[in-house]
Amino acid sequence: MSQFEQDTAVERIAENRWRGEFHPGVRIGTAVNGGYVLAVIGRALQSALPHRDPLSINAFYLAPTGLGPVDIVIEPLQAGKGTTFASASLYQEGQLKVRATAAYTDLQLLRGEDWCGAEPPSAPAFAETRPLERGFLEIHDRIDIRLTTGQELFETGKKPGTGEFVAWLRHQDGAAIDSVDLLMFSDIMPPPPFSLFGAFGWVPTVELTVQCRRIPAPGPLLGRLVSRHLSSGIIEADGDFWDSEGQLVALSRQTMKVRLPA
Amino acid sequence: MSQFEQDTAVERIAENRWRGEFHPGVRIGTAVNGGYVLAVIGRALQSALPHRDPLSINAFYLAPTGLGPVDIVIEPLQAGKGTTFASASLYQEGQLKVRATAAYTDLQLLRGEDWCGAEPPSAPAFAETRPLERGFLEIHDRIDIRLTTGQELFETGKKPGTGEFVAWLRHQDGAAIDSVDLLMFSDIMPPPPFSLFGAFGWVPTVELTVQCRRIPAPGPLLGRLVSRHLSSGIIEADGDFWDSEGQLVALSRQTMKVRLPA
Repeated sequence: MSQFEQDTAVERIAENRWRGEFHPGVRIGTAVNGGYVLAVIGRALQSALPHRDPLSINAFYLAPTGLGPVDIVIEPLQAGKGTTFASASLYQEGQLKVRATAAYTDLQLLRGEDWCGAEPPSAPAFAETRPLERGFLEIHDRIDIRLTTGQELFETGKKPGTGEFVAWLRHQDGAAIDSVDLLMFSDIMPPPPFSLFGAFGWVPTVELTVQCRRIPAPGPLLGRLVSRHLSSGIIEADGDFWDSEGQLVALSRQTMKVRLPA
Repeated sequence: MSQFEQDTAVERIAENRWRGEFHPGVRIGTAVNGGYVLAVIGRALQSALPHRDPLSINAFYLAPTGLGPVDIVIEPLQAGKGTTFASASLYQEGQLKVRATAAYTDLQLLRGEDWCGAEPPSAPAFAETRPLERGFLEIHDRIDIRLTTGQELFETGKKPGTGEFVAWLRHQDGAAIDSVDLLMFSDIMPPPPFSLFGAFGWVPTVELTVQCRRIPAPGPLLGRLVSRHLSSGIIEADGDFWDSEGQLVALSRQTMKVRLPA
């Protein structure tokens, strides 16, 4: 088992109830990364449902989570031909922490038109990039993040001011990236408000939706995370994620709260 | 009461249970428009919760709905200082049709930073535009839609091919546009796949999220709906909506299925 498979493993403990554990490796301070939380929920749904891939999954984050065991209660909503709908509630120490809803499918069985009206972001080839300095965030123990746009913030402290980060992303152990992995990668890059205000601290997610489109080809992902609209402290972050063959593999959007230090 | 307030009116029939009715006016064929469905759910949440505005609301559409009564069952999830989380299940004829999750707040009480990294789409002034020919879609009985980008599809049949529509939008009766109204307006424009393939028919929504940011200033909205990534028949539609003073008032994103006629 890869590190990510270990970190997201779940076991069935009762009808529609799954147990997992939040492991160290991807915390921001003491709070567990919201993308990792979503991946553990996505693993439970994958285990419980007849389809393996999140076509779309949304999660509202009611309260922060910490390390340790979590229970995920699945509520099947509807089983269709190629798509199954379900809700998932994540509890920690008996408290509801996250409510997710999802449509699962088998991405490799989808048939239909293809079209792309956007290019992947321009970035140097992965082999020409260097990983971020490890150690200053726990997350780099698990994820190799190589910023190619916006990196000056972390190199010189200069705020890019653009609301945009672009990065190559992969598991530190080099494991292949599957659909559930995309749920974590969608929320693993620096939050775009850092581009505007500096790395001021935790940016809590209100809700996050990830659409998975393809199982990524082997190799790293190229991700772009962009914010455009900050309204009275509320901001979106839109992600698009491309595989090493230049195919779009996932889209994400979240609502975040920007609370600058006084 | 305005037409929209009548069309989205709900009454409390039991603890956490609200009854509404889907009225004619915004159907696509026999199916009720998904934005209108979300607005009726949004009205029930607004009535049930201590806050009035959907900060963010997501809905998964399990099955099409038709005219007639609907029941909305609210499940409170968490009440915070300025934000309340709840889930809402919409039933018609005893069948679960839509599962929504939302964070409600009072938009006018939000305090925090503002920043905008994008301009409203360029469009002629509302006064210089003409409404779409009424009658060919029921929806134009209720909504004044004035396309300013992509309109050639409906005027000459020429497919724009860009995946983008821009339009001025308002209620036909001129009523003010409030936050719950934005839930309907977020899904009322022509689906972007029409720009690629022509107006081929119904484009079912898998799920839709709307972030409301501001109560719109009086006057029409300027909306842009864009798709960029069609993967094996799955496509997103991203909306941004601006008020008459050029302020962003809502963002939307949905996952749709493109099923071209054989």
